[in-house]
Amino acid sequence: MVEMRASDILRSVFELNGFANIQTRGLEPLDELRRKGEITKEVYVVRRLHADASDADELGLHFDLTVPFARYVVDNAGRLNFPFRRYQIQPAWRGERPQEGRYREFWQADIDIVGESVLDFHHDAEVALVMLEACARLSAELGIAPVRMRINNRKLIQGFYAGLGVSDPLAAIQAVDKLDKIGEQGVSALLTEQGIASGEVAQILRFAAIQTSTPGFADMVRALGVGTEDLDQGIAEVDQLFQAVHEQFPDNVVVDCKIARGLDYYTGSVFELELRGNESLGTICAGGRYDSLATDGRKTYPGVGISFGITRVFAPLISKGLLVASRSVPSVVLVAVDSEDTRAQANAVAALLRSRGISCEVSPNSQKYGKQIRFADRRGIPYVWFGGVDGQIKDIRSGDQADAGADQWTPPADDMAPKILRADQ
Amino acid sequence: MVEMRASDILRSVFELNGFANIQTRGLEPLDELRRKGEITKEVYVVRRLHADASDADELGLHFDLTVPFARYVVDNAGRLNFPFRRYQIQPAWRGERPQEGRYREFWQADIDIVGESVLDFHHDAEVALVMLEACARLSAELGIAPVRMRINNRKLIQGFYAGLGVSDPLAAIQAVDKLDKIGEQGVSALLTEQGIASGEVAQILRFAAIQTSTPGFADMVRALGVGTEDLDQGIAEVDQLFQAVHEQFPDNVVVDCKIARGLDYYTGSVFELELRGNESLGTICAGGRYDSLATDGRKTYPGVGISFGITRVFAPLISKGLLVASRSVPSVVLVAVDSEDTRAQANAVAALLRSRGISCEVSPNSQKYGKQIRFADRRGIPYVWFGGVDGQIKDIRSGDQADAGADQWTPPADDMAPKILRADQ
Repeated sequence: MVEMRASDILRSVFELNGFANIQTRGLEPLDELRRKGEITKEVYVVRRLHADASDADELGLHFDLTVPFARYVVDNAGRLNFPFRRYQIQPAWRGERPQEGRYREFWQADIDIVGESVLDFHHDAEVALVMLEACARLSAELGIAPVRMRINNRKLIQGFYAGLGVSDPLAAIQAVDKLDKIGEQGVSALLTEQGIASGEVAQILRFAAIQTSTPGFADMVRALGVGTEDLDQGIAEVDQLFQAVHEQFPDNVVVDCKIARGLDYYTGSVFELELRGNESLGTICAGGRYDSLATDGRKTYPGVGISFGITRVFAPLISKGLLVASRSVPSVVLVAVDSEDTRAQANAVAALLRSRGISCEVSPNSQKYGKQIRFADRRGIPYVWFGGVDGQIKDIRSGDQADAGADQWTPPADDMAPKILRADQ
Repeated sequence: MVEMRASDILRSVFELNGFANIQTRGLEPLDELRRKGEITKEVYVVRRLHADASDADELGLHFDLTVPFARYVVDNAGRLNFPFRRYQIQPAWRGERPQEGRYREFWQADIDIVGESVLDFHHDAEVALVMLEACARLSAELGIAPVRMRINNRKLIQGFYAGLGVSDPLAAIQAVDKLDKIGEQGVSALLTEQGIASGEVAQILRFAAIQTSTPGFADMVRALGVGTEDLDQGIAEVDQLFQAVHEQFPDNVVVDCKIARGLDYYTGSVFELELRGNESLGTICAGGRYDSLATDGRKTYPGVGISFGITRVFAPLISKGLLVASRSVPSVVLVAVDSEDTRAQANAVAALLRSRGISCEVSPNSQKYGKQIRFADRRGIPYVWFGGVDGQIKDIRSGDQADAGADQWTPPADDMAPKILRADQ
């Protein structure tokens, strides 16, 4: 129930911002999945239990929602209006070793904006702001911690590395991306293995250490004495993105030059979000700009997007019992049953309540009233109805009981739907 | 958008009737999936692309939502309150040859009620009625044809077959289940292969031909001259179910003795629904009673449920263009942009509209107003906003334009969300 409520909130924010829903199939041709960088080893391959030679298609389960979306855009380009804005809330799969915070099957909520040949830079700020708005709603309504968004830019990184003469910038990026896991020494060793001289390794680590929540970051980068055209463009983009986000969420954004994202399709802005005070949960939301992921060979569809990890955020809160529903069922009312002979009367009461939007269920048995009340209590159902259409309603929390007509009685608004509560607040 | 609207309607009806939502994982241990009858050959097996010897788990994608739900009940029996009512709206997968009306990946919406050791028979009627209510809502709001529910009962069938001395009733049921596909001659041949004598084959076919929408079916069965205790109980159950459903949906229910369902876990009532006047679409919804599917060896959790095929119903209507959305995006308003220098002002207008629940998007560019209006028109967005918070709103369908404040202006209720329209009505 908690994850569904979270999905509802995300969907509501995305739709308020004009994003249209699409669904893509979970099974994709394996070739589509296989060429998109580091992830390959974790892809799940799928075949029929009794496959035969005529099963030519190799299929796999998608490991994110960006790669299938890029395929969708290329397949449907003729029917779409660009820039095309969509959201997608679906499961994805990775062949992970089971461990804390890693899931084989996990729900994600993605927004992306894709253009035809061009996509203005202001959309980078737009997807960042929409996701921060969604996170603020999740904080307010479900009590998750406030977020910190770390931003960086691939042009900035690659421009810096190019200025240092690094020959394989993507390999260096993937090494630096492991900084939090293996530390400076580990990354240093990886970079040295890649043939990068110790002076340049030191510069890469100095660059990766830049982190600031003030607009002064450009000077910090320039102080390292490296200058290329890509670097300048990267600085300009980070500046523009930081200012747009900082203006609306001054406490939630940091420029962090070590953020790179492992996936090789990012070409500009990159985002990573964590929960403040809950950093051990890792990255709960990430994304960036991908200028050449979606292409049919002739035309390219540049995009920018960001993905919220619903399972990543909520599964630990649920399993630790920190988020609980005020009741386990949607029912506001249990309609009691006198005897099996009058079950039809109870059904009629329930039908009238439902016709006015009041969720209810009819008692499965006609045991003593005390037992039926305990049945409601165990599920957290707040009200029990006795008698026919002109009957009585009992609030089992207070014990109050009063005459009521099933065509008129309405519960307080606060009781209409189950509430999600923080157990520790 | 159509399938999401359908899911929203189904969810709303299920929750009004007190069903709680659960999700189960798409990947299940293969052993769980493999033992549940005819389906085995269509199960998708899943392994990591670079699997190694330590990958002991064999996994498969679930092929329906009933089998995973049975596993869920057994795994969580200690924490659940019985009878437990849940709905589940998720994709399922079958390794089908691609052909009209068959999908490798399809969405289903299931409701089930499961008891601990016992489950009263009135729940069979309850799930049937809730699904018929949901179908009526889908007819009213999305224009699908009215449904016909065919009901039968495994006890009735097995009691009849036992009376005839058929040694493997399940094999006979699976043969009769093919009646619509291979005709009487085909079924007759299959039954003969099973060693059933020609007189009994004729009786089986006479029994399977019984079909009526009046309560007189018991006499039609008894006229065949076969009598067993199971048969009597089957007749009583069909009678009770038929009357309960017929009372509320007199035009939508038929007793049909050929309905059997291929899956071997059904033990009592079975349901199949089709769209009236659209029978070529096949079974769009099906289910039944399963008294021994969910068991931990010591305790059994009898259940009854019914499953609506969202993809089965809506994919053909969408692909034929029969169901279309009144606009392709949720946005009610496009906020025009004068120039890139005033984009922040347009963003402020949009934020105010959204704070009052009005979905909108800001123009991606600052081209001439005529081009921005065409941008809205191509997406079906009905309104364009010009200027700042105190600006002007234009209804681009009528051309009317008027002063408006972004903190006050509200569109007519009818324009708030995209509508789903039948193209042929």
